[in-house]
Parts: sequence; structure tokens; C-alpha cells
Amino acid sequence: MSNASTTPPFTAETIGIGTELLIGGRSDSNSLFLADELGKLGIAVRFKSVVGDERQDIVTAIHTAVKRSQVIVMTGGLGPTVDDCTREAVAYATGHRLGRRKEALEGMTARLAQWGRTPNTAQLRQAMIPSGATVLKNPVGSAPGFCLTWKKAVIISLPGVPREMEEMMRQEVLPLLRAASDSSGRLPRTPIVRQLFHTFGLAEADVDAKLKGLIPKGVPVDLGLLASPMGVQVSLTTKGSQSAPEQNRDLLQKLANDVRSRLSDWLFAEGHDTMEAVVGRELAKRGLMLAVAESCTGGLIGHRLTEVAGSSAYVDRGAVCYSDRAKTEMLGVPAELIAQQGAVSKEVAAAMACGIRERANVSVGLSVTGIAGPGGGTETKPVGLVYIGLDDGTGQPITREFRFHGDRHVIKQRSSQAALDLLRRWLLDKA
Amino acid sequence: MSNASTTPPFTAETIGIGTELLIGGRSDSNSLFLADELGKLGIAVRFKSVVGDERQDIVTAIHTAVKRSQVIVMTGGLGPTVDDCTREAVAYATGHRLGRRKEALEGMTARLAQWGRTPNTAQLRQAMIPSGATVLKNPVGSAPGFCLTWKKAVIISLPGVPREMEEMMRQEVLPLLRAASDSSGRLPRTPIVRQLFHTFGLAEADVDAKLKGLIPKGVPVDLGLLASPMGVQVSLTTKGSQSAPEQNRDLLQKLANDVRSRLSDWLFAEGHDTMEAVVGRELAKRGLMLAVAESCTGGLIGHRLTEVAGSSAYVDRGAVCYSDRAKTEMLGVPAELIAQQGAVSKEVAAAMACGIRERANVSVGLSVTGIAGPGGGTETKPVGLVYIGLDDGTGQPITREFRFHGDRHVIKQRSSQAALDLLRRWLLDKA
Repeated sequence: MSNASTTPPFTAETIGIGTELLIGGRSDSNSLFLADELGKLGIAVRFKSVVGDERQDIVTAIHTAVKRSQVIVMTGGLGPTVDDCTREAVAYATGHRLGRRKEALEGMTARLAQWGRTPNTAQLRQAMIPSGATVLKNPVGSAPGFCLTWKKAVIISLPGVPREMEEMMRQEVLPLLRAASDSSGRLPRTPIVRQLFHTFGLAEADVDAKLKGLIPKGVPVDLGLLASPMGVQVSLTTKGSQSAPEQNRDLLQKLANDVRSRLSDWLFAEGHDTMEAVVGRELAKRGLMLAVAESCTGGLIGHRLTEVAGSSAYVDRGAVCYSDRAKTEMLGVPAELIAQQGAVSKEVAAAMACGIRERANVSVGLSVTGIAGPGGGTETKPVGLVYIGLDDGTGQPITREFRFHGDRHVIKQRSSQAALDLLRRWLLDKA
Repeated sequence: MSNASTTPPFTAETIGIGTELLIGGRSDSNSLFLADELGKLGIAVRFKSVVGDERQDIVTAIHTAVKRSQVIVMTGGLGPTVDDCTREAVAYATGHRLGRRKEALEGMTARLAQWGRTPNTAQLRQAMIPSGATVLKNPVGSAPGFCLTWKKAVIISLPGVPREMEEMMRQEVLPLLRAASDSSGRLPRTPIVRQLFHTFGLAEADVDAKLKGLIPKGVPVDLGLLASPMGVQVSLTTKGSQSAPEQNRDLLQKLANDVRSRLSDWLFAEGHDTMEAVVGRELAKRGLMLAVAESCTGGLIGHRLTEVAGSSAYVDRGAVCYSDRAKTEMLGVPAELIAQQGAVSKEVAAAMACGIRERANVSVGLSVTGIAGPGGGTETKPVGLVYIGLDDGTGQPITREFRFHGDRHVIKQRSSQAALDLLRRWLLDKA
């Protein structure tokens, strides 16, 4: 720890390479994974950049990065096509020669052999590695990565395919950076810890108000809020290098408990947990089977519930009743009720929940009916009006009314979250 | 056009500001919109970067950007909280003073008044603008943006909220850049045109092979491929500055026709069109009603179909039959058939498609049954085995077998796409 006061800790930056990332509609999601993993080693990512498949632009990005960061992780541009010029760019930028490396060729040949193939001319390019660089094995795909030190910065180059990049980061890069920490003393031992809290049902301003004054002045923890149709996410992030790991942990634990009590039952999940996983665990724990009747969400609730592995243990079925006739035929909602109250009404939501529960003969029925827009709204029943129903066979179905803002997609997202949240609250006796 | 040969055209870069973008799980999706809009003016985005809410890091990013780009668009960090320090960073980086600007204050006050509020102390910070900068009105939210020229670069600062950023880009920034083009002559008149083609059913290598030699040497168009669970996307992108608009347009049209003929019926959509929209239009055109029976996709197909506005015109209903009992009760699939063939079988897929079509009394029934994993696979029926069924009441249901790779989420995505693609081919008489 003594060295922490003499030399500043390593900071990192990521460079995503590929014209598709620059202008093509694909986000650089790799950088989020990298920030998480580097943070665990106490290395803060301070800059991210993206450049196209242009050698000169990659060179510029490398030269910019080495001036301000000690760990540089590049992803992409290691494939077999002529577009892929990261190898050339790194060699050129750092004044190294490119040469075919035996261990790179062997790893790639072995991988392709598993798939019953031999490397073609284009793929042989993937074994070209800058002189002086260490080859990083790719346990998933064919393109090896590499790592070299230049101007006191560690430059790491990985493939852009997320699964390959992630495995190479875990198996090759992190051990290497950990080893570097022992020799340089510039890798802080205190991980940057980030804790996430997910709320639903409160506006961002309300969450902000509830958390006011949470973090005392001078305490090295950042509070972050992030709003989306799925709710408001709260984050607590320690500043890695400023205190000992135990202190950081204790401090964060204390703050996390405070966050939990302030957010009370608006808080539905923490960390990487999701609403559908939380609801699933609570259903499974109680041995309850669920059936869902969806109108405006069109199947989204079923889709989300079944994203969770093992969901067949508690999801029996779903009915997507887009037409009024389907509501009557699939769920037994009386046609007169729809005619009287309208398909988007508290009464129909309740009848849908009861109908699906009875027909599936399960413990609980959940329903949604609403107007997702852009058409179909009226003055009394505008776009965004949504009713959620829940029936547990006690003869008293629960209903909730919502008036959501946003486009069709957002209204569907919010409606599905509101329905699952009602189920969560019911499961926890807080509906 | 004559000036194109003397001075190089403007190039742009974007800087996304916010710790949530850097480490917080939110991608910098604004940059994709900006690249599109700037491309329409013929300005290529060559670099993108992201920095956290740290004044010094934003300053570094600005200093880096002005060295290599003539148009710099910054998003984020203009809100009312102390985290938001873009205003200070731009002022500091460019040696300007910050001062409260009358037109910024008026715009903000007027906006808040519409919402029945008056600016609080924190919000008043939003009216602080660097001296010499032009205020950019925010027609949607409260934070104004600004624009200033420094070291021959135009530095534009916009809020990070996508809807506000997009409107300000359209209403304020693009007219301003267009005007700058007239005076400087460095803004190329030829827009960068990007055309997208979406395929399903071919591996990336197969698409690559089909398109081999498409673009003759020296022709200023880039070909890009992008693989995802939804298929392989092909892009043609003109290089804006190298030729006249009409030439570019003719060239692209010729190449696009060649792409279409080479990809033949693997090509399902172009531009921003989607599989669910294509299928929807074809159903609507023919006056057909659809019903869907989903097992492993859990509602995803219904969700996707109903993302399209107006889908109630052709989507009648969906049944999510997660349990075997649900397949029998909701669709009339004989329990003996499930016992004999297994729920994941060609025969059950066919029975599901027939069952939902008959019960809904519609023109066409579509079904999916498969093993999404990670559990549930056997040696003969591994994870990723998926059957798709389609029945149109002619007594000869169509079925298809797939063996998909990937995790649960990816297998669901691919299965939904394969099902919709079979429907598309059937609609176009190509199944």
C-alpha cells in the first residue's frame, strides 16, 4: 500500500475498432464488460474510444491513449479479412515488425481442426503478431490476441466478438495484469466496487429526493442514478485507490443498507438480478404456478419470464389475446363485459386474470390490457392507459391503473414491468 | 466542388459525457444517431469517445479532438446537478469565461413555465454559457446547448437525453452546419449514403462468398458485414467527398441491385425495416389473420409482431404453451403424440400450428417448439434443437428443423427469427 502515495494508480482506456461500431448501428458493449473487469482489479477506465477500420485512425487512437493511460484494451479488427488492420496498426504505431508467430499459428490451427477445418490464406493473417508482443490464446474462436508494453503502457489487443473477448479477458489478460501489479506496485490492491439497486414505480426526481444526503461529504463513494422504462437504477461506486479494501467494503455495506431502507419496497432487485428472475424465485420458493394473459404487451411478459433458465418450473402458459374474440374464446371474458366497459378497462383486466388462472388451473393469473398506441386512443382512454390484473382464486382480483408516457415500445416495456412488479408485491404480501 | 481538391473535407468526432456511459451499463447510443445525421451532410465521424463526469478528463478529450476533427459534438453533462460539468470543461479547455446568458435563461424559464415550474438554484446553472458561444435552444427539455468555434473546430455541446439531443440536432445544429458549409467551402456537398440489407439463414462466410468481387477496385464504396442472432446485415457506404451526388446515387443503385440479386430470397428487408414489419405488411396486403403457438420462444414472436403499430389488423392471438398440458389444453395437441414423439418434435410442431389455426379460426398458424437450454437437452435432442411449424389449413403443414448454437437468449432470438422467416417465405410462395 505504501507505494500508493508515491505513484498514481494505473488508469485504463478502451478502444473499440470497427466501422460498424462507428457508424453501423452496433454499440460498443464490450467496453462495459471491460470497465467492470478492470474495476475489479482497481483499475479505473477513464476514457473509451471507437474508431473505424482505418489503420491511420487506429494509430492516432493508440498514440492518444498512451499519453494518458497505462492500460489500453483494444477490441476488434483481428479477423481474417482485409478490413481487419489492428495488427498492422499496433505494429506501425509502436515501431514493431509484424511476423507470423508459431504459438499463434498453432493455437489457431488446433482450434480450426476441432471444427474440421484447416486455416486458409486469409486466416493465416491472424497469426501475424507484432515483435516483442506476448500472444494471448483464444479458447473460443480462431483469432489470437496479443499484449505488448510500449512507452510504459500495456497495450492489449483482443477480438471484438464478445464471447471470445470475455473469455480471453478472464483467462489471459486478468492474470497477466495481476502479475504486473506485483512487480510494478502501481496496480492498486483495492478493487473499485460498484453496487447496483433497481427500483420501479418512482420517478427519477423522487428517487433523488429519497437519497438526499446519503453520502457524507468527503466519503469516497459516488452515487449514480439512471432512468429507463424499466425503472430507476441507483449505483454506489467506491473510488478504488483511496482506502484499504476492508474499509471500502464496510463503508459500502453501511451505505447499501441505508439505500435499502430509504428505497424500501420500491427496490426490486440488486446487482445483475432482474425483475423476471426475482419473481421467478419467489414463485418457485412458494411452489406456485403462473399463467399470464396479455393484450397490449403482446407476449413480452411471457418472453421475459422465460428468459430465466428453469422457468418451466413456475410458468405454465400464456395467452396473447390481441383481438376481443380471443379474450372471450381463450379466457372466457364475457363479450358483453367488453362491449360495456371496453377491452381496456379495470373490469376486463380482472376477468382476464381470473380467466387464465381458471383455465390453466394454476395458483395465480396475471393480466395486462392497454393502449400501446400510436393509434387507438380516445379522449377518455388515451394512449398509455394500461390496466393490470392479478387473480389468486380468492374471489377478489387485484387491479391497477397506469397512465404511461412514451412510444409503443416504451409503453409495452413499462406495462410488462408494472405487471411483474404487481406480481412481486403480491408474492411479498405488499400488493 | 472545386474546393474539394484543395482542402480536405470536415471530419467529425463525438464525445459522450457521463460516468454511466463509461462504467454504468448504458451504451452511448447517441453517437449512432449523430453519425447518421452528420453523414447526411457529408461529414464522416472518424472517432467517438466517452469520458466520465470529470472536468479534467473532458478537457483532455476536447484537446485531443480539436487536433484531429473539425466538427466536435459533445453530448451530456449539461444537467442541473454538480456532476454536470461540461459547461465548465468547455470554458476551461478553450479559455473562455462562463457567464449567465440571457437567451439561455429565457428559454429555460419559458420551458419550465410550461410545466408549471420556476427554475431553482441548481437549474440556473444551466444558463451558464461560455463567452463567445452561440446558445442552442432546447425545444424539448430545460437545458440549453451551445456551440463555439475554437482552433478552427466547431465545438457543439448538447444534452445527453436522446430525445432532446435529437431535436436540437435537427432544429439547431444541422442548419448551422449547413450555413457553415456555404461560407467555408469545406463541407462536402455529397452526403455519405449508407444502404442496409438484412439476410437470414446464411452464415457470415456464406454471405461474404456470395458478395465476393461485388465492388470493383477503386470504386469509392465500402462493403460491411455484421452478424447477429437475427441474421447477417450487409451495408454499402459511399465515401461522401469523392464524387458528385448523382454519380454516387447511380453507383449505389447499381451495386444495390447486384446485392439484391446475389442475396436473392435470403434478403428479407432493407434499411430500417424489420422482419416483423415485412411479415406484417405481407399479411395485411393479403387480408390474412395469423395466430401463433410458442413453446421455447415463450412469447417473443408475439412480442415482436406486436411491436409494429397496427398489428391488430393481422395478429389475432398467441398461445404460449410452456407446459405439455398447455399444449394439449390450448391447442388440442394429443397427449399421446407428445408422449410418443416428445414435445420437441416435427410432429408436435405441426400439431401446434394446426391447433392454433383451427382454434383461432384464422388463415395461418405458426408454431415453435424447441430446447432453449441450458438444461433439458439429451444426446438425441440437444439444446438448440428447434422445430418450426406452419399450417394454412390445406392439410399439409410445413415443418422445419434447426440446430442453433448459443445461450438461452440467443436460441430464443434465432428461433423467433426462423419462425417469422418461414412465414415470410410462405407468404412470398418461397417456403
